[in-house]
Amino acid sequence: MTHESFTDIDYGFMKHALSLSKRGLGTTAPNPSVGCVLVKNNHVIGQGWTQPGGRPHAEIHALTSAVSSPDGATAYVTLEPCAHKGQSGACTDALIQANVKRVIIASLDPNPQVNGKGIEDLKAAGIAVLSGCMKEEADKIHRGFFFSLQKNRPLYTAKIASSLDGKIALQCGESKWITNDQSRMRGHSLRANHDAILIGIGTALADNPSLTCRLKGLENQSPKRIVMDRQLRIPITSELVLSAEKIPTYIFTEVSNSKDYPPSVNIITLNNIKDLKEVSRVFLSLGLTRVLIEGGATLLSAFIEEDFVDDIYWFRSNQVIGADGLSAIRSLALRQLSDAKRYKLQELLPLGTDILERRTRRR
Amino acid sequence: MTHESFTDIDYGFMKHALSLSKRGLGTTAPNPSVGCVLVKNNHVIGQGWTQPGGRPHAEIHALTSAVSSPDGATAYVTLEPCAHKGQSGACTDALIQANVKRVIIASLDPNPQVNGKGIEDLKAAGIAVLSGCMKEEADKIHRGFFFSLQKNRPLYTAKIASSLDGKIALQCGESKWITNDQSRMRGHSLRANHDAILIGIGTALADNPSLTCRLKGLENQSPKRIVMDRQLRIPITSELVLSAEKIPTYIFTEVSNSKDYPPSVNIITLNNIKDLKEVSRVFLSLGLTRVLIEGGATLLSAFIEEDFVDDIYWFRSNQVIGADGLSAIRSLALRQLSDAKRYKLQELLPLGTDILERRTRRR
Repeated sequence: MTHESFTDIDYGFMKHALSLSKRGLGTTAPNPSVGCVLVKNNHVIGQGWTQPGGRPHAEIHALTSAVSSPDGATAYVTLEPCAHKGQSGACTDALIQANVKRVIIASLDPNPQVNGKGIEDLKAAGIAVLSGCMKEEADKIHRGFFFSLQKNRPLYTAKIASSLDGKIALQCGESKWITNDQSRMRGHSLRANHDAILIGIGTALADNPSLTCRLKGLENQSPKRIVMDRQLRIPITSELVLSAEKIPTYIFTEVSNSKDYPPSVNIITLNNIKDLKEVSRVFLSLGLTRVLIEGGATLLSAFIEEDFVDDIYWFRSNQVIGADGLSAIRSLALRQLSDAKRYKLQELLPLGTDILERRTRRR
Repeated sequence: MTHESFTDIDYGFMKHALSLSKRGLGTTAPNPSVGCVLVKNNHVIGQGWTQPGGRPHAEIHALTSAVSSPDGATAYVTLEPCAHKGQSGACTDALIQANVKRVIIASLDPNPQVNGKGIEDLKAAGIAVLSGCMKEEADKIHRGFFFSLQKNRPLYTAKIASSLDGKIALQCGESKWITNDQSRMRGHSLRANHDAILIGIGTALADNPSLTCRLKGLENQSPKRIVMDRQLRIPITSELVLSAEKIPTYIFTEVSNSKDYPPSVNIITLNNIKDLKEVSRVFLSLGLTRVLIEGGATLLSAFIEEDFVDDIYWFRSNQVIGADGLSAIRSLALRQLSDAKRYKLQELLPLGTDILERRTRRR
């Protein structure tokens, strides 16, 4: 077999598959959110992405939605097709049966049941397989899924909305609104692509938030809500408890359920909810791979200290509040500057009078 | 006379004059830093800018440096030529004697001895005059000079070097270095275009700085140094006092000079050095129109509360220090969010791992 490499055409179709894969983020966990494009004679004949709940997989979605026969087509997939027969048949089998000619893959699946085996099965059936096309971009999109397998924890994203000098509220508690409409809209779209929003009881009591995604068309993509509430102080009349029947809600606590919470509220009792490794394992067991930390400062600081914060979306307004305001990040008791954690700038986006800095932890 | 307006050619030459005018910033006060370009047959035949100390003026510098006769030339000047005879003759007279044909002006001179009179004199001599070409850009460059006439105070620029979460030092005081080399170099170039650097005694005692411009080629453009030192605590052995013979140094205090400071140190005693209006008047009397506030947080906060901070250069690193670090801005005791002062983003510049935000006070 002659050596094959990627063409500009491959990159173009894979880029499309990657953008499809982003659609499902926040709705497919614990499954990865994959994109798939079927191409024949340089025309897209089918496209798919992992459907809400994680099934059908992207390849099946693409094959069933194809407008003409996939016989002889090239399939672009952001993640190695699954070879294990789970709830549905293996995607490799579906691609083989459809008689596709080539499969171009971005990331390999780190899942030990799949890793490399998907490629082997395809090759054994005489399909030409190329992998690694736009791997870096795909790895970023699939990070939550990868972390769940490799780091035994979800991907954690922190959302911070602060003043120019890093304050998230005045001393009196006033915080509505430090950032502008555009920032808050962008914040809502972040909610839509995460599996769950995590807050501390302080924020729950102070703001009585509902933590839903209020963007038009994305209302159904509101993530699960989690409150870290050591002493189970969240009121039965809070927005979160009242709406728990509609949107899954978890309260992590260290005490037994003494109040009369409705059965729709999931109370999870742990010995130590400050043990973030243990908390993370429970998150995985709940099928969460992408968790958005929305505050407050105490909760966020605990995750920073544990070095669990992977991404930061820092929305910064243009006003100055002063040192008596509430800091976005609590005391970290650093002994020397070289102990400070660094977060690498990935994107800088002006949002009207605000700025959004997207940063990732340097590793 | 037919109506005249600016051509693309005019804008091109004025742009050049504006860039010349920036060269002198920090070296011409209390005079404005002006640029002048002489053009004949679409060729630049002379160029000039206000010379160190404020004289010769830009027009004289351009006329004397012209490579051919300015007879019939067009002069582009960033500020209305002076009509009053000061230490040297009026620039209007020089332009009339040189027999230039047209004068294109950016800003009018708010100085009551000049305002509009420069233009009148030129027109009376039969020279075509157009004003307002790139006025907005020119007004920005001449702001220090304008403020001295219109606001009875210098232009104040704040330089802040903070962590991602707005801290300028660890709790233990460690601050070297939060920002990177590129940020510090850019900070030195800021020094070069200001007339003076202002610090509080806290910073003087903590850092023992020399506050010189250490950029190659700009060492001679080190600004004057001013320390706000209510109780006259600055040591005789401090870098600032030791180098006062070479670089003018002012200590503002409320007590009489009891220590044995060398005569090169200018001790200025005021009743209340927290009266920033009075302090500003003294700055003007010292010929300062552009003052760079380099800290610390207490001094900067006083200027913010007085609403005297016009520009902010905020250098921000990528590490997180936490709430126990020293805030860039002290407590402002705001009662409500709407009382917070806003600083409009003008420029966003990545500097390696740091970001520079240049902001101006919204008015």
